[in-house]
Amino acid sequence: MNDFSSSVRESSFGEIGFVSCSDFHCAVPLSFALGGGLKSFDIRYETYGKLNAEKSNAILVCHALTGDHHCAGIYSLTDKKAGWWNNIIGPNKPLDTNKYFIICSNCIGGCQGSTGPSSINPETGQRYNLSFPIVTVKDMVLAQSRLLDYLGIDTLALAIGGSMGGMQVLQWAVDFPERVRKAVALATTSRQNAQAIAFNCVGRAAIMQDPLWKNGEYEFGNPPRVGLSIARMMAHITYLSDKGLEEKFGRQTHKNGGDYFSSSFEVENYLRYQGQAFVNRFDANSYLYITRALDLYDLRGEDGSLESTLEKVKANVMTVGFTSDWLFPPEQNLEIVRALLRCGKNATYAEIESDLGHDSFLIESPKLYELITYFLDA
Amino acid sequence: MNDFSSSVRESSFGEIGFVSCSDFHCAVPLSFALGGGLKSFDIRYETYGKLNAEKSNAILVCHALTGDHHCAGIYSLTDKKAGWWNNIIGPNKPLDTNKYFIICSNCIGGCQGSTGPSSINPETGQRYNLSFPIVTVKDMVLAQSRLLDYLGIDTLALAIGGSMGGMQVLQWAVDFPERVRKAVALATTSRQNAQAIAFNCVGRAAIMQDPLWKNGEYEFGNPPRVGLSIARMMAHITYLSDKGLEEKFGRQTHKNGGDYFSSSFEVENYLRYQGQAFVNRFDANSYLYITRALDLYDLRGEDGSLESTLEKVKANVMTVGFTSDWLFPPEQNLEIVRALLRCGKNATYAEIESDLGHDSFLIESPKLYELITYFLDA
Repeated sequence: MNDFSSSVRESSFGEIGFVSCSDFHCAVPLSFALGGGLKSFDIRYETYGKLNAEKSNAILVCHALTGDHHCAGIYSLTDKKAGWWNNIIGPNKPLDTNKYFIICSNCIGGCQGSTGPSSINPETGQRYNLSFPIVTVKDMVLAQSRLLDYLGIDTLALAIGGSMGGMQVLQWAVDFPERVRKAVALATTSRQNAQAIAFNCVGRAAIMQDPLWKNGEYEFGNPPRVGLSIARMMAHITYLSDKGLEEKFGRQTHKNGGDYFSSSFEVENYLRYQGQAFVNRFDANSYLYITRALDLYDLRGEDGSLESTLEKVKANVMTVGFTSDWLFPPEQNLEIVRALLRCGKNATYAEIESDLGHDSFLIESPKLYELITYFLDA
Repeated sequence: MNDFSSSVRESSFGEIGFVSCSDFHCAVPLSFALGGGLKSFDIRYETYGKLNAEKSNAILVCHALTGDHHCAGIYSLTDKKAGWWNNIIGPNKPLDTNKYFIICSNCIGGCQGSTGPSSINPETGQRYNLSFPIVTVKDMVLAQSRLLDYLGIDTLALAIGGSMGGMQVLQWAVDFPERVRKAVALATTSRQNAQAIAFNCVGRAAIMQDPLWKNGEYEFGNPPRVGLSIARMMAHITYLSDKGLEEKFGRQTHKNGGDYFSSSFEVENYLRYQGQAFVNRFDANSYLYITRALDLYDLRGEDGSLESTLEKVKANVMTVGFTSDWLFPPEQNLEIVRALLRCGKNATYAEIESDLGHDSFLIESPKLYELITYFLDA
């Protein structure tokens, strides 16, 4: 047994332990907000804990851009990593599987089991690729609502997520106000600013100009790895903070030599590793669609105000900003709560001091645990 | 006559007007700080104004990463743009050509006429490409000092520059303390932090993974345009600020359609244009060398302190930080002056409120003009 599996075993004390994923096939067509749709689709999801008899203890966890349905537990003893939010989900954790029934699904347009551009279009027998309809956060939420219908869940005790997950949470509260009792949106925004769109644009340009992209028709097993890894390396910088990077790497040079122009400093090796790891788990076309869904997200109504949209909300909403998040900075989270309060809604804003940038919401944080526990129990 | 040339004519009132560049060939070998060297080299430069009889009125302008020797004036009436710092250089401007003799040279390792990776190695008859020695800011300054020798200039009334230009200015004050009377370093740093290195690293990765790069041996006329444009698009975001981008573009959509994944928003078209314009004027290998020179720059001495290096300085130094510059933020500029003051040097720090990010130093700014005029006349 290697070190790794033993460390998983040791840390599994008090953990959710083994989990598995399920697939929901929806044969009812899904119309997309910007046109087009799917005659049928699949949603891959996981659940932890037990749904109570009243079906009143369901929590929906919404994942970020490159996340997926596997947010807690491990699949086997050889699993290197637990789900992406394992620190917050489990017995006696803030999202307590002893009390709650927790659901997380891969978003529509994704590439981890739910129908997306890399899925086979049953009508043609070929991958959708760029024939996949334009996806918005609204479509992601609509598809999730079908999953909840299927699971027999009318209302959510809580919808929670960070970044794009937070966008979904807010969209849930707007599109299905009767179905969301509480909502927690972390490190998120009501709309991306020009800088965030700009970074996404460069990532997409790297993918689409990779000769292997082939207008989205890349060969199976021969995707535009270079473009996708460049996109990820750059995006990864935006998920961290200057201070966090400085503390972790500073100007440390890389001891083992390597290529002079690409690996003189430790931070370069770290980023390159991030880029390489990503291309092995993510589909390039999905990256185009989902980053564009982020760009398109704008919670404001036609009159340009957040209030005209948020007046529909019935959930008690909390947003949380992280001080060093420069992708979706604290004030963008605060703005949402201000608008909710102007509409007379129940809303709370909390800010957490952190040097870890946008990704702070993913990382162990007793302050965040306390906030969530308090908000959920209140 | 088109609109353009007439606008140049109109604005040429009080302007420096027509300029031309010169080439200095140095037949004395240049040894580079990290090893290797050039048996001979060329420096392309421009001068404006007249050197006085005492040769005491020379100002050296040092350019940033992608700048060049052409910092003021126009070459002809059909010139679309004046030199990159034309707003600050000219008759009665802060760098007053009625009073001063201004010199600006393309840095060694560059691609605008000074010897760099794209130059022909006289010993082989082939481009240097990656056989060019590793360039540091110290080497750039050493090469410039040869130009000053050639021009018969012992001491500079002022060395001035922003970003990498500021690094050169500081290196001048350290390496040639007797030759610099005043020094102004704008929007600069004594060393890049991990985040700045990380952005450079992604840009280089985009170039080096472009199939046309061919380990630096790309064909003439067929350079790695894609990689270089991606590098530039990304870097360009870091030269601006979120607020500046927001005010300029916000979430404006692009009216003329275009490709859905690359041009839905105005900011995307702007960035794409920036990327395309850049590949027509810059050499990809130069970009690798000069970004690495930025990464390698570290003004601290072997003991890890700035003081041990800066104690050599004799110049009166001013650094200027710009509030929205997140690439080389104000505090990195302030840190240099603090260290100089601890060494008992004449040093001043000024901070300018600006929403225009790192590039603020390039843009019209009455406050900056006032600061420079005051510092120069004092």
